[in-house]
Amino acid sequence: TRRYTITLLPGDGIGPEVISVAKNALQLAGSLEGIDFGFKEMPMGGAALDLTGVPLPEETLSTAQQSDAVLLGAIGGYKWDNNEKHLKPETGLLQLRKGLKVFANLRPATVLPMLVEASTLKKEVAEGVDVMVVRELTGGIYFGQPRGFSTNDIGEEIGFNTEVYSAPEIDRIARIAFETARKRHGKLCSVDKANVLEASMLWRKRVTALASEYPDIELSHMYVDNAAMQLVRNPKQFDTIVTNNIFGDILSDEASMITGSIGMLPSASLGESGPGLFEPIHGSAPDIAGQDKANPLATVLSAAMLLKYGLGEEKAAQRIEDAVLDALNKGFRTGDIHTAGYNLVGCKEMGEEVLKSI
Amino acid sequence: TRRYTITLLPGDGIGPEVISVAKNALQLAGSLEGIDFGFKEMPMGGAALDLTGVPLPEETLSTAQQSDAVLLGAIGGYKWDNNEKHLKPETGLLQLRKGLKVFANLRPATVLPMLVEASTLKKEVAEGVDVMVVRELTGGIYFGQPRGFSTNDIGEEIGFNTEVYSAPEIDRIARIAFETARKRHGKLCSVDKANVLEASMLWRKRVTALASEYPDIELSHMYVDNAAMQLVRNPKQFDTIVTNNIFGDILSDEASMITGSIGMLPSASLGESGPGLFEPIHGSAPDIAGQDKANPLATVLSAAMLLKYGLGEEKAAQRIEDAVLDALNKGFRTGDIHTAGYNLVGCKEMGEEVLKSI
Ligand SMILES: CC(C)[C@H](C(=O)O)[C@@H](O)C(=O)O
Ligand SMILES: CC(C)[C@H](C(=O)O)[C@@H](O)C(=O)O
Repeated sequence: TRRYTITLLPGDGIGPEVISVAKNALQLAGSLEGIDFGFKEMPMGGAALDLTGVPLPEETLSTAQQSDAVLLGAIGGYKWDNNEKHLKPETGLLQLRKGLKVFANLRPATVLPMLVEASTLKKEVAEGVDVMVVRELTGGIYFGQPRGFSTNDIGEEIGFNTEVYSAPEIDRIARIAFETARKRHGKLCSVDKANVLEASMLWRKRVTALASEYPDIELSHMYVDNAAMQLVRNPKQFDTIVTNNIFGDILSDEASMITGSIGMLPSASLGESGPGLFEPIHGSAPDIAGQDKANPLATVLSAAMLLKYGLGEEKAAQRIEDAVLDALNKGFRTGDIHTAGYNLVGCKEMGEEVLKSI
Repeated sequence: TRRYTITLLPGDGIGPEVISVAKNALQLAGSLEGIDFGFKEMPMGGAALDLTGVPLPEETLSTAQQSDAVLLGAIGGYKWDNNEKHLKPETGLLQLRKGLKVFANLRPATVLPMLVEASTLKKEVAEGVDVMVVRELTGGIYFGQPRGFSTNDIGEEIGFNTEVYSAPEIDRIARIAFETARKRHGKLCSVDKANVLEASMLWRKRVTALASEYPDIELSHMYVDNAAMQLVRNPKQFDTIVTNNIFGDILSDEASMITGSIGMLPSASLGESGPGLFEPIHGSAPDIAGQDKANPLATVLSAAMLLKYGLGEEKAAQRIEDAVLDALNKGFRTGDIHTAGYNLVGCKEMGEEVLKSI
């Protein structure tokens, strides 16, 4: 048996419910593939704020760093929305990403055939969409210095941030993107604003230079405003997209909404080495927390990404992915993806169906 | 008779074709309302680069500054794409905005009933969409200092930009947005990334503080990633959106693509005083330039915005808007908005139909 330590960070809102389902799925799929998991559950986000006064306690970070992979539920809620910046749940998430050095965020946006109706796009536009957004996650305007509040030379109050990328930061995310495209359909679209921003000009220059090392990959460049349009006009034109932290934040959310089922979408955040961070792309949904209404599948699929990208356990990952499709094919639907004629279930029941199918 | 001087900047690609149609519409609608126009046509963008070596010649800017309003076609093209930054057509556009001090960019995204099929969104999602994006246009990361290329403390090459807003810059764009919402349906959504960026925190603070002066306006706040999603999920929830320069660039393009007919969408850029800048939101479309295929209606509607927002000539503006609807109702369509059963026409013929209807 292979042994792995997994840090579970349930977080806030629906986080604990969906993490509990995903944990069971990991355990079962693992046991069938000779994998033994040790789980460590740690507080993070609003839950950690209430318990310890900070959104990412030292101990949570060090436990995560020492584990083989980290699975996060969701963080945030109205209760902490007006906290000062260093006491926001979101700040804990940014600290966790930085602390784990997970600079590459992989966010698939796939329209499953049985869920094509969930998209607000016309069927012929939505069906077959399968985009992977590779977002730079530990650089750019999210972390750039200097930042803060000050006064300008005529004494007016200002707020400012720095968008900055270094050549090696661009190269390492670009390599991940080229390699991701290679495992997919061989097309990579790099998104920037190189007609205006110097940070984007360097981005484009470095990505272009790397292309010669990946002659099998068809590289294109697109401005971010155009990309936001093209995702609506014809999302099928995209295979793999690579972009900076803030553009990736915006475009990956747009891409996921195009699928119509963000309750289904996982994500993986990876570094050079060390544990990866896996989380559903949806938020903590405080309005339905604790009501057994959440869709656990995004977290279950994040667990599959954890197995595949985090631990290299492809077979166990495949078991989970297949089980999710199986449960959907049997007609089970949580409220967010439910349409007439299907079997409406809660978070727990959906979890049980996935377990049965594993 | 009232007299106005209008600077025409045809620019590149399809720019000259659509400007010529809009000029005729202005002239006719004006003459019927006792308005006399003097037009000054000046080079700008790639056309100016070829002619004078710079994308915005001194004389073009000073002519524009001294006129009552500026109507721009489109700029840019493959030919100049690899120019150095200060020799890009886009740089000329940014210099023009800054030179005219037009800090408020109003971009309507309206789904006309007869064009609802053009949207890639399902009919029930697209019909009735009527969003106005108010984008800050002369500040933020587009113009923030410092910017450029350098090396960081470990000698790596970096590219960097500064996102910065001052309190008065935020206040003046917010006031325009509140007033715009007041003339529309009284709802204003301010979009930022205040959970991460200090520039956005100041933005949110100032917009919130101003709300007490506009008690009749329902103000909400949304993070930019969520806004990118909500525009796809349910665009009808929005009335007026206000946001910074870069988020506005992305979201207004996304919103316009949601209508499915960006060949129809105008924009207005306004300052405290001085001439406004009016332009279609589409680009220069070099692939169809000179082929009489362009849709001139976005530029014609920009001329209507010029009359309404730039000169306060509501009646003449209304004549043009009505004429556009009339031509569409009669079944005339350029290629970009054409569907089976309608009368396919070129740029010139569409222009003639609008003139007939005026
Ligand atoms: C919560 C927030 C800080 C975060 C981000 O902007 O990265 C979120 O939107 C995401 O995409 O994971
Ligand atoms: C051409 C470019 C500089 C410009 C911008 O980014 O503002 C364009 O995208 C726009 O929206 O008018």
